Amino acid sequence: MTKLKTVACIAVASLIGAMAPAFAQGAPQQPSSAQTSPRPSGPVQQRLVPGMAGYTDDVLFGDVWRRPELSPRDRSLVTIAVLIATGKTAQLEGHLGRALGNGVKPMEASGVLTHLALYCGWPSAVSALEVYDRVYTARGVDMASLQAAVPQLSPAASEPGRSQATTRQFGTFAPKFAELTNEVVFDDLWRRSDLSARDRSLVTIAALSAMGDDDLLDPDLKRGVENGLTRAEIAEALTHLAFYAGWAKATKAMTVAEQTLN
Amino acid sequence: MTKLKTVACIAVASLIGAMAPAFAQGAPQQPSSAQTSPRPSGPVQQRLVPGMAGYTDDVLFGDVWRRPELSPRDRSLVTIAVLIATGKTAQLEGHLGRALGNGVKPMEASGVLTHLALYCGWPSAVSALEVYDRVYTARGVDMASLQAAVPQLSPAASEPGRSQATTRQFGTFAPKFAELTNEVVFDDLWRRSDLSARDRSLVTIAALSAMGDDDLLDPDLKRGVENGLTRAEIAEALTHLAFYAGWAKATKAMTVAEQTLN
Amino acid sequence: MTKLKTVACIAVASLIGAMAPAFAQGAPQQPSSAQTSPRPSGPVQQRLVPGMAGYTDDVLFGDVWRRPELSPRDRSLVTIAVLIATGKTAQLEGHLGRALGNGVKPMEASGVLTHLALYCGWPSAVSALEVYDRVYTARGVDMASLQAAVPQLSPAASEPGRSQATTRQFGTFAPKFAELTNEVVFDDLWRRSDLSARDRSLVTIAALSAMGDDDLLDPDLKRGVENGLTRAEIAEALTHLAFYAGWAKATKAMTVAEQTLN
Repeated sequence: MTKLKTVACIAVASLIGAMAPAFAQGAPQQPSSAQTSPRPSGPVQQRLVPGMAGYTDDVLFGDVWRRPELSPRDRSLVTIAVLIATGKTAQLEGHLGRALGNGVKPMEASGVLTHLALYCGWPSAVSALEVYDRVYTARGVDMASLQAAVPQLSPAASEPGRSQATTRQFGTFAPKFAELTNEVVFDDLWRRSDLSARDRSLVTIAALSAMGDDDLLDPDLKRGVENGLTRAEIAEALTHLAFYAGWAKATKAMTVAEQTLN
Repeated sequence: MTKLKTVACIAVASLIGAMAPAFAQGAPQQPSSAQTSPRPSGPVQQRLVPGMAGYTDDVLFGDVWRRPELSPRDRSLVTIAVLIATGKTAQLEGHLGRALGNGVKPMEASGVLTHLALYCGWPSAVSALEVYDRVYTARGVDMASLQAAVPQLSPAASEPGRSQATTRQFGTFAPKFAELTNEVVFDDLWRRSDLSARDRSLVTIAALSAMGDDDLLDPDLKRGVENGLTRAEIAEALTHLAFYAGWAKATKAMTVAEQTLN
Repeated sequence: MTKLKTVACIAVASLIGAMAPAFAQGAPQQPSSAQTSPRPSGPVQQRLVPGMAGYTDDVLFGDVWRRPELSPRDRSLVTIAVLIATGKTAQLEGHLGRALGNGVKPMEASGVLTHLALYCGWPSAVSALEVYDRVYTARGVDMASLQAAVPQLSPAASEPGRSQATTRQFGTFAPKFAELTNEVVFDDLWRRSDLSARDRSLVTIAALSAMGDDDLLDPDLKRGVENGLTRAEIAEALTHLAFYAGWAKATKAMTVAEQTLN
């Protein structure tokens, strides 16, 4: 791995300790005698797929997660959005716990799930619900606070132009779809205050990219910049996403982002 | 949720009772003391993700499922097609039971699975098989009747024009693929009488949309209309699908449908 | 199934014996009294979905898997790549065992997983890891041999032209993504000697096709031919893939392949 030396750096043990559970997947946490300290890849991955373990330790956790170009909180938002959107519930448990540790509030994490129920479909969200229940219960999250009335943001948060375009495109052929898109998704959902408009944009961009719906990204990329995401944050979010949704999906999303935002 | 008042209506208790299992996912059916009647969202969703629970109760079950623009039987066909195509077996159990309750015959439900094995691949169908076994066994479905010889429909049900186009496109580069496409998929599968051509079209449109293969939809949309689906039914099927495959996939499919059929 | 007679042939019993576990999914191996010999579809599929069982026995295993146009080893590589890329871990166990039986070495199978971690994302690879562990343990694979230092192939195996194109496209907007793409994916990964360049191409083409990323296939198809795959092997690999990723994904990939390679 000669070239990798330039992108890899030694991971801090305390950081690794927090990360290990997400990857160990029920494997024993004790390092084998051949190892001197635990690594995020975990002993099974190291034993069976050493190449992948090297990338996990040196590139993903040793380099990418630690880059200051995107906050750990934002990286966690991108990661859980990808895992929910692609139905990877086995990996969600560890990463939802990390998200809460990285500053994502429970109300926001629940807001992500509501948001993605609409963008990715109920089955993906319902499957994630079980994981949320386990993580919230284990961390003693105050469920009552999630029940608090969620005020709607001002109508200015919604976009009349977007609604008109939807009505123009689908209003004749599928009037109910146009109505639901405008009233439920663009208006009611985006105006909910349990997740900021900026975070909704980040989560939407991540989910669309992970699902291969890069042909829908253009308006959400522009809207993301209007909502406060920087171009550098979006580029870094898609770089991070390459590891969780794969290089193929990241390359397609990056191609659109480069054209729309550069 | 001010705007939602216009799209929501109060759900009938008996309807909800039948729907709850599909969403409760092993959660206790007793409503918490704070509730006066069970709702389709279930107590876990209500407690952890109240925003999503509101959409589940008020929009998906309180409004969309009850619209007369598409029969409950057709909604069930769309729903199980999406769940099989996207590998959401956890949600399939409840919805397959509902499909049988909504008038989909066991022979037809099995026909859907055979059809989707070819369109979505064996692994998706094989994973669904276990769920079918549980549901059929629980409902005492007469398995012997499924074994009855399935007569082939008349050759007219297949399309010579389609076969010729396939041979022209793939016959030189991949002759075996052209042969299998024509003889197994277009001829043998589409002529099986365990599922009507109209239902095959509905299920194919739903599966292609859910898998993001909207670039293949055009011929199947036209064929669907020839097979007896109305434009309004297709528009409503894709509106329904938005909740099970997500808004992104529905938007892409609706864009093609609007262009092809409007 | 009149037309199917032309594509079906009687399966050899010993072949079927080896194939059955992948499809039986925990179902009892004893054939029902109505059957005279076990068939790959298994008794549950035969009882519940006889149409699909017919295609499984007569077309998929009775015809496609036995065609000499692609070796069993290559068919196994395509199959496990598709299963990992689409997260079908339930089917992976049987097919990984068959892959090892068909001549894929454990080091190569591990190389496939490392390769697909980058192309399809960590969660897909991490979910497959558990299956690898069970299969390697059950077959007594010598784990120590997997730890052997993997020499890098010569730099000539990487392509300066490809790196320059990446830098030109993404270097300004997302410099870290361009760096990782060039140094980790195109250089380090593709030069690892645990999987040949020819097999990497086969696995990459299968994974991109199965994930619906056919818009990225063109350069990997050309590269595949440079790395030693024949056009006929690629056409047969995509024909085989139709059964594991579905006809829709195969049709899209075949369309690109026909245009790029014919």
